[in-house]
Amino acid sequence: MRQNTERRTALTDAAIEVLARDGARGLTYRAVDTEAGVPPGTTSNYFRSRDQLLAEAGARVHVRLSAPEEVMADPRAEEPSTGRVTALLGDLMTRLTTRRSSYLALLELRLEANRRPELAAALTATVKESFDISVGFHEAAGLPGGRDEVLLLYLALTGLTVERLTLPEAFSEYSDAQVVGLLVDRILPGE
Amino acid sequence: MRQNTERRTALTDAAIEVLARDGARGLTYRAVDTEAGVPPGTTSNYFRSRDQLLAEAGARVHVRLSAPEEVMADPRAEEPSTGRVTALLGDLMTRLTTRRSSYLALLELRLEANRRPELAAALTATVKESFDISVGFHEAAGLPGGRDEVLLLYLALTGLTVERLTLPEAFSEYSDAQVVGLLVDRILPGE
Repeated sequence: MRQNTERRTALTDAAIEVLARDGARGLTYRAVDTEAGVPPGTTSNYFRSRDQLLAEAGARVHVRLSAPEEVMADPRAEEPSTGRVTALLGDLMTRLTTRRSSYLALLELRLEANRRPELAAALTATVKESFDISVGFHEAAGLPGGRDEVLLLYLALTGLTVERLTLPEAFSEYSDAQVVGLLVDRILPGE
Repeated sequence: MRQNTERRTALTDAAIEVLARDGARGLTYRAVDTEAGVPPGTTSNYFRSRDQLLAEAGARVHVRLSAPEEVMADPRAEEPSTGRVTALLGDLMTRLTTRRSSYLALLELRLEANRRPELAAALTATVKESFDISVGFHEAAGLPGGRDEVLLLYLALTGLTVERLTLPEAFSEYSDAQVVGLLVDRILPGE
């Protein structure tokens, strides 16, 4: 059972690499078998449909991109301050840019969701849940600002991530740290 | 000559529809011929390579999404105020959501740019140029804030557009007008 779960996760991770590299149209059972280095037919044994594989890849991407458990488990680990928000958002941008294939796979999945209502429903639930977790953490940590401010930060960093991953030279005049600094300064209430 | 230019634009528009619907992998000369309702072989006569077709589609998308010429030509047409920024950004969100296929095609092109350096260079130049035009307009109109603030607004609205076009239900608790209102209020200096 445990082995089954590990194999399933390994296949989902392979699907994420295929999505990032070849797009949703390139995602076939066979491509995942090849990427994972498993015998042909393995992926189709684990996932009853391509929709299921796509939905699990979407959920797994969010796990791979979320903050480390030890951070999330203890919102009061540090004093609340705008400096802490700056550090948390800096870590987020590092995760997004070092886990490039996860985020590119997510963009591919989002576009594919336009063509597949079942995938759209699964991704929407995951995005809503992870936004609620962010807002919950922000409030529990006593950080400045509330749900509205977390939304604005989330949207701007989504925009920045799309730029960085698809056209990295377009805004190279600004570093990630500069953008995060400007966002925190403009969007959060002063201390 | 004029007829040639019109035909070329019609083929580029057809390419945008194909991109939005089927993704970059679905963009073939044949699919564009079919979409445009022209004889097979027409698109390949007009565009020497798929790279050229992709690059022209990217430039055309930006034209289709840009503000109306009469607005851009006269930055001083109205008194500068945060209310004017709110109105301009509201118009922008309307264009992005009503010209859905243009923006979806742009996202597909951005992802394809990861695989095609020539396309990445063309799109980067277009994005930089249209950002400079926005900043130039903002300054010429005497609107509050400068380059940094225009960047933050641009990034947040990019994030919002990606959400609206790919997972429209994810943030349905906020209307476009609410998000624009929050952004203007938080990001721009008060009057």
